[in-house]
Amino acid sequence: MNTTTHAIHNFSAGPCILPESVLQQAADAVRDLDGSGLSLIEMSHRSKPFVAIMEEARQLVRTELNLPDRYEVLFLQGGASLGFLTTAMNFIPQEGIMDYAVTGTWAKNALKEAKRVGGAHALTSSEDTGFDRIPALPSHSEADFVHITTNNTIFGTQYQGDPEIDVPMVADMSSDIFSRPVDIEKYACIYAGAQKNMGPAGTVLYIYDRDHIGHTGRDIPSYLDLAVHAAKDSMFNTPPVFAVYTSMLTLRWLRDNGGVAAARERNAAKAACIYGEIDRNPLFNGFAETDSRSVMNATFTAEDEAHTAPFLAACEAAGINGIKGHRSVGGFRASMYNALPLASVEVLVEVMREFERTHG
Amino acid sequence: MNTTTHAIHNFSAGPCILPESVLQQAADAVRDLDGSGLSLIEMSHRSKPFVAIMEEARQLVRTELNLPDRYEVLFLQGGASLGFLTTAMNFIPQEGIMDYAVTGTWAKNALKEAKRVGGAHALTSSEDTGFDRIPALPSHSEADFVHITTNNTIFGTQYQGDPEIDVPMVADMSSDIFSRPVDIEKYACIYAGAQKNMGPAGTVLYIYDRDHIGHTGRDIPSYLDLAVHAAKDSMFNTPPVFAVYTSMLTLRWLRDNGGVAAARERNAAKAACIYGEIDRNPLFNGFAETDSRSVMNATFTAEDEAHTAPFLAACEAAGINGIKGHRSVGGFRASMYNALPLASVEVLVEVMREFERTHG
Repeated sequence: MNTTTHAIHNFSAGPCILPESVLQQAADAVRDLDGSGLSLIEMSHRSKPFVAIMEEARQLVRTELNLPDRYEVLFLQGGASLGFLTTAMNFIPQEGIMDYAVTGTWAKNALKEAKRVGGAHALTSSEDTGFDRIPALPSHSEADFVHITTNNTIFGTQYQGDPEIDVPMVADMSSDIFSRPVDIEKYACIYAGAQKNMGPAGTVLYIYDRDHIGHTGRDIPSYLDLAVHAAKDSMFNTPPVFAVYTSMLTLRWLRDNGGVAAARERNAAKAACIYGEIDRNPLFNGFAETDSRSVMNATFTAEDEAHTAPFLAACEAAGINGIKGHRSVGGFRASMYNALPLASVEVLVEVMREFERTHG
Repeated sequence: MNTTTHAIHNFSAGPCILPESVLQQAADAVRDLDGSGLSLIEMSHRSKPFVAIMEEARQLVRTELNLPDRYEVLFLQGGASLGFLTTAMNFIPQEGIMDYAVTGTWAKNALKEAKRVGGAHALTSSEDTGFDRIPALPSHSEADFVHITTNNTIFGTQYQGDPEIDVPMVADMSSDIFSRPVDIEKYACIYAGAQKNMGPAGTVLYIYDRDHIGHTGRDIPSYLDLAVHAAKDSMFNTPPVFAVYTSMLTLRWLRDNGGVAAARERNAAKAACIYGEIDRNPLFNGFAETDSRSVMNATFTAEDEAHTAPFLAACEAAGINGIKGHRSVGGFRASMYNALPLASVEVLVEVMREFERTHG
């Protein structure tokens, strides 16, 4: 595993820390791809080197998530925000329904876009309590699909595994994909913006079961039609070359460091470290309900609001970046994506302890 | 002007050659952005450095194309292929019409997507003659807008300036934006994938007159609604950070090398060089009609089909990359985007002359 210590402890919520080795290789490729004499970004996407890159990226997703053959893998553009529209277009039947679990801002946005397309309803919501928890899903649904947002970056909440429900799920996994193994058979589709655990901003991953595609009875514009992209091996139009390449590098790094099973262990250790301190330290309060806590984004606030600014200053002095909380929650957010070393979390915890000594 | 000679003469049709200085700076930023201690691609898009990058990129588009204040500038995702849908959604009134000049594959695709949205018709077409020319536009149209594709990469044809027509135009300028000054007042909207004259693949530029937006009477999904992106200063969702940054660097390079006026002169010199040889050399034939020739993509074929393979081999031996023609035309295509030095065209011409000596 790459354990290079960054000069800065990067807790940014996304775009976020990537493995140091990936950054070096990506920079090298922008100068000259593998000794080809050409930069990665000035060669045709139809060239042999780039076609091989795209295929390796797609294959790595297959192997790292152990996908059955009937699942397709695409690297597209537009982020999860366009994905809200794309998934609704491709999955909600003309006379059917997708039920949405509304667990945060992005889940709300997903439902909003889906309502423009067809039958889309809120199945459950935690908006009344400020999105501080993940409401349990029922085990049965009358809908054709249920849409979930597996991790809620802003609020620091996360499903604690793959929910049990008797219809296929469509899941926005933008902020926790590749953080743990997934029970893929439960999902008709997983989509995820790259810029957390997979790579830089600029590409969005779609994984879907082909058996669930093409049955809506709807005319779908070409760019929004997953089958159109699949028929062209994810090159219906010019792909976002740099983002796909750097995602491929990050997926290689994941594979070389034990895959998603090992990532789950590392993420659990980081989460235990920060939540242990949040629970112990009387100067801080966790935001999310304990049974809904995210291993990716730990949200917490100062017991005394007057401590917020000095604690942010103490973090900055320790080289901690990106710890300020989202305006919807306030306080602090420690985003601990796959590439963040445990050592950075330990530095943060030490700053919290020192803050208790000086301000407690 | 950066005149570093590439080890390879890169005539790729796109993604394509970028200035050597831009590649170096982009690679540096992937390692460490301006000494910040963080990579460009691992910092928040809401961070001060990236907000400044996005604003500089937008401002450079304004100044280099001399845009009046009422024009908006956005860097989005999905390429021109999603732009076909987006422009139709934002401009064609519910009861109105956009007329399309069908001058090639991409123009056909634009019309196809627009027909899904509303009133969209072919105004003119050169498909009968294999898209070897740009048919003249009428000076009058009954449509609300006329859509043109200013340069046709595959066929090597290009409008020889801004057409005169009495309705506002919507133009796909993916393959010739920033190659010359534009009479902006004739356009309601210009959109362009970055990966020719502006930067790497992964972002698409929209320039539009705000006075022409918001009048369709149509509910537009958020990601496809230009006004939604404008209200968020082109950061409605996470932007494609690397592609925007590298486009900004390329726009700085353009500015520092005399802007679009100087680019036009350089491009004219390169075009004169290659077309002069195509017309002189009895072994080669130009594909496009003379009055429709593109300064960006010169398409030509071998007089004797048996010469195609050996000429491609001679080019490869001379370090010439990407000269093989698109399958729709066959033969050869010399793409000469802004960053391609005249010296590379001179090398190609010398190979053509030598080929005449050895095969004529």
